[in-house]
Amino acid sequence: MSLLPQPLQRAIEEFSQLPGIGHKSAERLTFHLLRSSKASPEALGNALLNLRIELHYCSECQMVTLQKKCSVCEDSSRDRATILVVESPLEVIAFEKTGYKGLYHVLHGVLSPIDGMGPEQLKLKELIDRCKSGGIGELIIATNPDVEGEATAAYIRQKLGDNVSKITRLAHGLPMGADIEFADQVTLKEAIAGRRVL
Amino acid sequence: MSLLPQPLQRAIEEFSQLPGIGHKSAERLTFHLLRSSKASPEALGNALLNLRIELHYCSECQMVTLQKKCSVCEDSSRDRATILVVESPLEVIAFEKTGYKGLYHVLHGVLSPIDGMGPEQLKLKELIDRCKSGGIGELIIATNPDVEGEATAAYIRQKLGDNVSKITRLAHGLPMGADIEFADQVTLKEAIAGRRVL
Repeated sequence: MSLLPQPLQRAIEEFSQLPGIGHKSAERLTFHLLRSSKASPEALGNALLNLRIELHYCSECQMVTLQKKCSVCEDSSRDRATILVVESPLEVIAFEKTGYKGLYHVLHGVLSPIDGMGPEQLKLKELIDRCKSGGIGELIIATNPDVEGEATAAYIRQKLGDNVSKITRLAHGLPMGADIEFADQVTLKEAIAGRRVL
Repeated sequence: MSLLPQPLQRAIEEFSQLPGIGHKSAERLTFHLLRSSKASPEALGNALLNLRIELHYCSECQMVTLQKKCSVCEDSSRDRATILVVESPLEVIAFEKTGYKGLYHVLHGVLSPIDGMGPEQLKLKELIDRCKSGGIGELIIATNPDVEGEATAAYIRQKLGDNVSKITRLAHGLPMGADIEFADQVTLKEAIAGRRVL
């Protein structure tokens, strides 16, 4: 029998389910919430309970939204011929800061058989439907530059090669402010292969 | 206007209030809860809402408990003449694993004027009352060996010196398995000062 009351134990257990939070951190978070004047368990608890209640996926791009369509898809000033394909809604936020003016498509994951993520688990059918309905000039595949992201990009290209005239992938190379001395060899190889005329 | 729906933003904001969780981590946790099959926002949300509902402080030692008294104080086999004074309930759990058989007193904090923690914010009055009511042979002060913990220990000794016959402090020295080469000089000094006959 543990000395900690059951409500505390339950909160600790639930916190430990989260990525990057071990048992010790979960204990610390729970006791912080008990004592803190700034954060409160009730505020976080209510926020989490309301999380999924009104949330939908945009009928067009699958972005999370409270309406039927997200604000990007509703915006008539956007370039509707370009679709940027991303893994998750957070990447939409990141690209919005760059001033990108086309539309998006959120896959909600990448192909990863180990994690049970096959094509059916992703919003791929919706992407194929969008492309087949025509009017798409370019599909920019912006999955992460890792094994799963590359596999997903290759799969999309293979599935949609005939339906979209142009499928592109984000450039690989040195990030701004990087130190070439510390760059890994794959990045350097990609940076040389993708070099541009000055 | 942010592109993220308000319920998501609220959860992210509440997560960012927690210690060690920045905005990026809060986003990651929120989206993990949205997608994960193992963790669910409802389970964590409900756990947090129930956290404080039935929780009390033990009327004797101030440990968190669901009853009026905690299981340690209720246990008649414990040595009631010894009180181990700790900062938080988690330390009670830690000391319980050592086989310690006395009672506890949880201060729920340490003296730290910067954080607005004075003697009134701690469960010090309750400790003083317990000692004044008599029957306490030894008070072991087990606050952390840092500035605030040492200050709190000194304060308790000064306040209670006349009421308790013996006030002790946990030994300082090298932790088990430590490497002397990497030990800091204060610890080494304490280890020499506290050396014992073999």
